[in-house]
Amino acid sequence: MNILGMFCVRSWPGLVGFRSCVRSLHAFPGITVTQIDEEVAKLLELKAQLGDDGKQQFVLKTAKGTRDYNPKQMAIREKVFNTIISCFKRHGAETIDTPVFELKETLTGKYGEDSKLIYDLKDQGGELLSLRYDLTVPFARYLAMNKITNIKRYHIAKVYRRDNPAMTRGRYREFYQCDFDIAGQYDAMIPDAECLKIVHEILSELGLGDFRIKVNDRRILDGMFAVCGVPDDKFRTICSTVDKLDKMPWEEVKKEMVNEKGLSEEAADQIGEYVSMQGGMDLAERLLQDHKMSQSKQACAGLTDIKMLFSYLQIFQVTDKVVFDLSLARGLDYYTGIIYEAVLTQAGVAAVSNEAQNGANAEESVSVGSVAGGGRYDGLVGMFDPKGRKVPCVGVSIGIERIFSIMEQKAEASAEKIRTTEVQVMVASAQKNLLEERLRLVTELWNAGIKAEVMYKKNPKLLSQLQHCEESGIPLVAILGEQELKDEVVKLRVVATREEVDISRADLIQEIMKRTSKA
Amino acid sequence: MNILGMFCVRSWPGLVGFRSCVRSLHAFPGITVTQIDEEVAKLLELKAQLGDDGKQQFVLKTAKGTRDYNPKQMAIREKVFNTIISCFKRHGAETIDTPVFELKETLTGKYGEDSKLIYDLKDQGGELLSLRYDLTVPFARYLAMNKITNIKRYHIAKVYRRDNPAMTRGRYREFYQCDFDIAGQYDAMIPDAECLKIVHEILSELGLGDFRIKVNDRRILDGMFAVCGVPDDKFRTICSTVDKLDKMPWEEVKKEMVNEKGLSEEAADQIGEYVSMQGGMDLAERLLQDHKMSQSKQACAGLTDIKMLFSYLQIFQVTDKVVFDLSLARGLDYYTGIIYEAVLTQAGVAAVSNEAQNGANAEESVSVGSVAGGGRYDGLVGMFDPKGRKVPCVGVSIGIERIFSIMEQKAEASAEKIRTTEVQVMVASAQKNLLEERLRLVTELWNAGIKAEVMYKKNPKLLSQLQHCEESGIPLVAILGEQELKDEVVKLRVVATREEVDISRADLIQEIMKRTSKA
Repeated sequence: MNILGMFCVRSWPGLVGFRSCVRSLHAFPGITVTQIDEEVAKLLELKAQLGDDGKQQFVLKTAKGTRDYNPKQMAIREKVFNTIISCFKRHGAETIDTPVFELKETLTGKYGEDSKLIYDLKDQGGELLSLRYDLTVPFARYLAMNKITNIKRYHIAKVYRRDNPAMTRGRYREFYQCDFDIAGQYDAMIPDAECLKIVHEILSELGLGDFRIKVNDRRILDGMFAVCGVPDDKFRTICSTVDKLDKMPWEEVKKEMVNEKGLSEEAADQIGEYVSMQGGMDLAERLLQDHKMSQSKQACAGLTDIKMLFSYLQIFQVTDKVVFDLSLARGLDYYTGIIYEAVLTQAGVAAVSNEAQNGANAEESVSVGSVAGGGRYDGLVGMFDPKGRKVPCVGVSIGIERIFSIMEQKAEASAEKIRTTEVQVMVASAQKNLLEERLRLVTELWNAGIKAEVMYKKNPKLLSQLQHCEESGIPLVAILGEQELKDEVVKLRVVATREEVDISRADLIQEIMKRTSKA
Repeated sequence: MNILGMFCVRSWPGLVGFRSCVRSLHAFPGITVTQIDEEVAKLLELKAQLGDDGKQQFVLKTAKGTRDYNPKQMAIREKVFNTIISCFKRHGAETIDTPVFELKETLTGKYGEDSKLIYDLKDQGGELLSLRYDLTVPFARYLAMNKITNIKRYHIAKVYRRDNPAMTRGRYREFYQCDFDIAGQYDAMIPDAECLKIVHEILSELGLGDFRIKVNDRRILDGMFAVCGVPDDKFRTICSTVDKLDKMPWEEVKKEMVNEKGLSEEAADQIGEYVSMQGGMDLAERLLQDHKMSQSKQACAGLTDIKMLFSYLQIFQVTDKVVFDLSLARGLDYYTGIIYEAVLTQAGVAAVSNEAQNGANAEESVSVGSVAGGGRYDGLVGMFDPKGRKVPCVGVSIGIERIFSIMEQKAEASAEKIRTTEVQVMVASAQKNLLEERLRLVTELWNAGIKAEVMYKKNPKLLSQLQHCEESGIPLVAILGEQELKDEVVKLRVVATREEVDISRADLIQEIMKRTSKA
């Protein structure tokens, strides 16, 4: 680590910065001549980069792993968010927001190995802060801080992970999460089933193609590990290995268990048998009779809940997409019960993430990866409560970035043009010196609540005004000329058909409203 | 500065962290015994805070200067955003989004003295990053990076300033900005006038009480400084002092000019005469005839534009609120032409920020501070373009946090209850063992797009179900019982009137839609 670099070269804003930097060296008596030489070399390098005229050359880019959203992407994003938010509201959720950064210690010890991916803020004097890694931990902090024991809330916001993302797969260091969670002490499996109903509704409405929702339970996994002879202290690490089954074939997963994690071959084979099982309520019933599995109290509790969950899912009419899958593990530490994950299965969208297919096992080859996931986490809020009081929670997170990617690809492929504005009328003129008349008319329209535009030129050409309408999908043009002003009419042109009709100025607003209310 | 603190005590996550911390001390040969003793003392203090069982005690709080939004605040926020976004869309704006952090160098040299308020991210290897300080600089970076020369866009997002905010005044370190900007080479003052029209529409629609929009021009300020005898190199610093006129009386501002900035008393007095002037188009005309002011070409250009601006504002029907005010300076460096700022003038809301009133001069005492501001910045995009190509821009930023505060206060004071959900129907039961029937009915409602809720209990009490409706403002209850199931009806209860009526199950959805469409 370079001590000097932290306050000197890297924060160097120019010559003034250089001077104060050199002065501050005296505060560090342990610095060697070699270190100073190195710093001087770096400063001279920076100076060279400034070029002849001393004008700083900017690197014109966004930070690694991040992107801007252009207006087209924003239009798609708005559409997707509207679908998701409507669903959350239909299920009676409130919404909250939390700051983008938390005290560092709030995030500490919540994400296991992934903690190394947390972005920290620089210590500029004051508190040590980190960017949020997900919305679940801030939610738990919010509940504990405000002593809330019951809430159904959604939260849509960006989270941050210093991953090495493959951006072509729709993965970024800054990305949105759309979370829906139900906190409170309730009867078993009712809120859990509603979360799955919500995933079903959202994925159906977005029209992304066929999907499947895998369900499992952490207690079943733990019970399975116990009866297969996995030592207690290896549950978590073996669970992480099982979690790789959606990306690696069983042979490789087994190899990792035996060679890297030191599990016996026999135990691994027994796990292998279980994790190949998929089914519905019937599978849960069968496993409750399984001579080995039934020895674990934990597994039995989980299996009984899976049965109950499926009975509610039948009522919710969503069992067509839900499968009880013993290979589902999910990475995060804080899950304590039901876990689930939704994957798209349609071959048509497989191209979106075909990179993810490399090394995928045959059974999973139609999947394009997770688009939603979640589970029950009954212990997290208690970690924040001074007295450890628990607030049971279950929730789901919609993998919105992957959904954006798919929707963008669909939009590209489709002939339909995406509008990035909602303008209904362009106020135009074919003649000169009518700027003030155009401004007068557009004011009338704005004041009536009509979405309208006018070109910011004194004498724009009619062609360029019409072209702008074609390009941005504006359906109507209100054309003014000397004759129209004299006759107290406006020529209303339908851009699509080029049909033109004179409308009395007094009727114009109503006519525009009538014509655009259909759209 | 504490060198050790940067990698040792402050990032200390537990005993493991402590061990690696001590090892890393060897990497810093210049550390003294005293420094080590200090660090050890800090570690022991931290250990003491952990308590008996070694369980870490969390500080349950959000980072300094930040806050959570609870569901009520979010409901207000949504309403305000909807008003603002509708206005932006009515004026034909697209929207974009940019990452929350930018390369540090993107922000360097854009904010003058305020640069010290920028949040930097910790150097964790890789690029040096900073949280965005406003939305204008990222917008300019976006334009230059994508070679965009024409766009009308809005951007609503959080920005970050390491200020020492007075939070009671509705000022935070994390806060929203709502920006609308028009980029492009257009005829003078047309987009500028539209920005003022937008401010007028938004503040009128939000119903915050009376307001005033002050307008000035950087060129008029510079011209005024020149003719009053301010040396060229003192324009910016004197401009900053003028900017304090909304918080300090003229006497103090003058004192700062003379005593701190070294201006002659005569020059200060001449400035004092000008900055007390307010008016409309007439004032611009008078100043164009002013024997001193008319000597400055810059001032004349600005005054001519102010005249043209007012002629467009007349057409836009907003001159009732706009005043040409020579004391308006605005802090940011990048403005090059027209600048403006909207203030609320209603006495009724003055209480919201009465702290800001201390020391306010008599003329300004009814103002509660800025709720919108902006101006023309024709040089900013060029700072990012390798060839310095300019893209003229004008924009406005709505001071949304202050507006939130006022709306929250209004909501508190009002008898009307703010709903935090949109639930239309609660599916309830007075009898036991009807959970599955309730779930069946709520599924029907959800599938029909009705916003509905059910309690997550097997046998909830009717009273608690009704209470929940009262508390969260749910207008209807669909009550199921053995008799209703037999008769294939549902008892529909209106919460407000307690009136109940049996509705045939087949007609229920239509009946609910009919009853809730009015609301």
